[in-house]
Amino acid sequence: MKIVDIIEKKKHKESLSEEEIKFFINGIMNKTIEDYQASALLMAIYFNGMNIDETTLLTKYMVESGEIIDLSDISNNVIDKHSTGGVGDKITLIFLPLMASMGIACAKLSGRGLGHTGGTIDKLESIPGFRTDLTIEELKSQVKRINAAIAAQTMSLAPADGKLYALRDVTATVDIIPLIASSVVSKKIASGANHIVLDVKYGSGAFIKTPQEAEKLSQIMVEVGRRLNRRISTVITSMEEPLGRAIGNSLEVIEVIEFLKGNCGDESDLKEVTYALAKTVMEKVNHYNSEKDMENHLDEVIRNGLALKKFKEIIKSQNGDDSVIDDYTKFPQASIKYEIKSKEEGYVFETDALKIAKACKNLGGGREKKSDSIDYSAGIYLNKKSGEKVIKGDTIATIYTNKQESIKDSEELVLSAYKFTPNFYNKKESYIYKIIK
Amino acid sequence: MKIVDIIEKKKHKESLSEEEIKFFINGIMNKTIEDYQASALLMAIYFNGMNIDETTLLTKYMVESGEIIDLSDISNNVIDKHSTGGVGDKITLIFLPLMASMGIACAKLSGRGLGHTGGTIDKLESIPGFRTDLTIEELKSQVKRINAAIAAQTMSLAPADGKLYALRDVTATVDIIPLIASSVVSKKIASGANHIVLDVKYGSGAFIKTPQEAEKLSQIMVEVGRRLNRRISTVITSMEEPLGRAIGNSLEVIEVIEFLKGNCGDESDLKEVTYALAKTVMEKVNHYNSEKDMENHLDEVIRNGLALKKFKEIIKSQNGDDSVIDDYTKFPQASIKYEIKSKEEGYVFETDALKIAKACKNLGGGREKKSDSIDYSAGIYLNKKSGEKVIKGDTIATIYTNKQESIKDSEELVLSAYKFTPNFYNKKESYIYKIIK
Repeated sequence: MKIVDIIEKKKHKESLSEEEIKFFINGIMNKTIEDYQASALLMAIYFNGMNIDETTLLTKYMVESGEIIDLSDISNNVIDKHSTGGVGDKITLIFLPLMASMGIACAKLSGRGLGHTGGTIDKLESIPGFRTDLTIEELKSQVKRINAAIAAQTMSLAPADGKLYALRDVTATVDIIPLIASSVVSKKIASGANHIVLDVKYGSGAFIKTPQEAEKLSQIMVEVGRRLNRRISTVITSMEEPLGRAIGNSLEVIEVIEFLKGNCGDESDLKEVTYALAKTVMEKVNHYNSEKDMENHLDEVIRNGLALKKFKEIIKSQNGDDSVIDDYTKFPQASIKYEIKSKEEGYVFETDALKIAKACKNLGGGREKKSDSIDYSAGIYLNKKSGEKVIKGDTIATIYTNKQESIKDSEELVLSAYKFTPNFYNKKESYIYKIIK
Repeated sequence: MKIVDIIEKKKHKESLSEEEIKFFINGIMNKTIEDYQASALLMAIYFNGMNIDETTLLTKYMVESGEIIDLSDISNNVIDKHSTGGVGDKITLIFLPLMASMGIACAKLSGRGLGHTGGTIDKLESIPGFRTDLTIEELKSQVKRINAAIAAQTMSLAPADGKLYALRDVTATVDIIPLIASSVVSKKIASGANHIVLDVKYGSGAFIKTPQEAEKLSQIMVEVGRRLNRRISTVITSMEEPLGRAIGNSLEVIEVIEFLKGNCGDESDLKEVTYALAKTVMEKVNHYNSEKDMENHLDEVIRNGLALKKFKEIIKSQNGDDSVIDDYTKFPQASIKYEIKSKEEGYVFETDALKIAKACKNLGGGREKKSDSIDYSAGIYLNKKSGEKVIKGDTIATIYTNKQESIKDSEELVLSAYKFTPNFYNKKESYIYKIIK
């Protein structure tokens, strides 16, 4: 078998066989296939796609390229939750304590932020002392003990995906639906959970630009999961503007704590998306008579403080300073806090997620390259979001940074992210496009 | 400027600017662009093409990536002839002595065989002692003295093309019309001739499969030449079956000598294609009243022995043993000569060039990789070609090899290359599809 023949086949829109896909993944792993051949094949896949059989096989062999975690000794209902990546997306940090406080076991392996998307691991590391380098044994024993644990994903899970992703990133082949699907699903399958809920984001701040594409991706992931014996459900959500008001690592954790303290309005996008994800899991694991029942249960564990207590337990169990819960000054502090004043007025119509993310990266809160360091205290708080009224001179956003020189550019970016409309309009459209299970 | 943005543009079918194309070629040369990025761009070009402006710029910067030979001190009418590659294509070896014997200066830099196509340099090296490693100065002085010289192309001409070609070869991105155009034309422009005649082949034994594609390629090459101040003409010819009857290095040189001795029937495909190429050059350089006049002149230099004498001069001038002209035993000899007998009968309808080429490679007459050695004596002589009658048991082809173990497979390949039809048919359709100038 020769890789050049496999590329030739895909170039001519033929399906690849199991043998060919296995050969490709093995070749990536043992370096008998050169990167320049892999990237040519990836680009051919961009144009000619992969069908569901090919995507399933690709996923299967990516899973088999590395370690596969066995969580079956914890329970038959171990949950994993994953987001395809967005701006201000701190939902994992809310989701885990909510589920764990209801007795649902969650084992979560997570990544770091890159480009314009944040990473859960970075957010957690803004908590002084927090350990994310748990071994698999430590992760499992913590899940058994307190129902939740979260650790940094290592290269040992689906390493073929890691290699391919690194190549896709520098060859303009990231935005390929079947490859996104197999990348996400292979990592989740190797992580060992049997119920997987995916937050599939579309919009300016996501890899996927339209809800239609997100739906296509979702259908593929659910089907690949089914064929590989995992129950996957997806919630397709908008990422046109940042989730919640905080963007940046410690700012987001503070927003999470506030949410768990019950300080989140009913109008919150954060609540809508978190609850939608939670409900797809709850109905699988427990019996509820209605959606409303599930929502009441979620409200309950917030109101009675169990969810917040669970978050505190997780922090403590992973060596973090749990006094941050009551004292936000324990987080790294930005030396500069700068309020951005509106030059326009009207109702906020749009807050472009990508521009806000870029501004956050400028301020030190994100990475361009994997090796870049990150300033946990840097970020942006959106004082105004879409649907809200703004008068000239109002603070629309607040910048936190230690880089004086980054303020000017960031302010411009943030200002350009806001679009206004003169008339009141009823913003309240749902952030949820569709749920696929 | 970032290469990933350039790939992204081409992915979305946008045209690349002069700056971007220059950046790409420079990046290939100074290795700031990785091979895996170049191959992703090449595959995007396979799908989304390049317009004539882009193709011209690509050609220009490939020419400028290396040495440019100046032949202007020889004459204003230095000719170069090139074939896009076929099976049994020994026309350069006939064309040069024909033109030179008429006083037309030809300076030819040529390549070696790779894959299923033969290379003129290999053919010449089957003549004992023949030197193909002439310096540019030696090449020029020989052209001044005897009107013709032929040398192996070095990496110093259009080296960016060499690098790109090596990459295309292993990433299934060879068959891209604008890249083929810029590859051929850049090498020809750097070689210094001002009149260039190209034999553009289509069919089973060529890179280009259809006459329509060959025409598209020709139009692009002629236009790119025009924009870069070179007169290019193309003759589009069929490569469905091998040219002439000999395939394999020394066998082909012997066929050339026989042709120059006048031992070639009027029905010969070799004659038709050679004359068509010669005429496009002759009419540019000298005055003729008619096509017939030109053909008479060609017949004349064969009949009076001038062309053969010129070939002998070229061999001698390049250190070759010119006694091969009269004594074919001076060529390397195959230890095995094996006649393939027909199992069918009827009229030969097809002799698939690609299968014959593969059989020739099996026998030792070709290379799979650049580093492979070659057996100059190995090859195939087609005793029967299309249109000819065959009775069961007739010798349809003769195998020459030193590899006993290769005979069985090669015989099967050769037999499968022949297709028969029971009824007589008038084969004589032209090998020339079109001439573009």
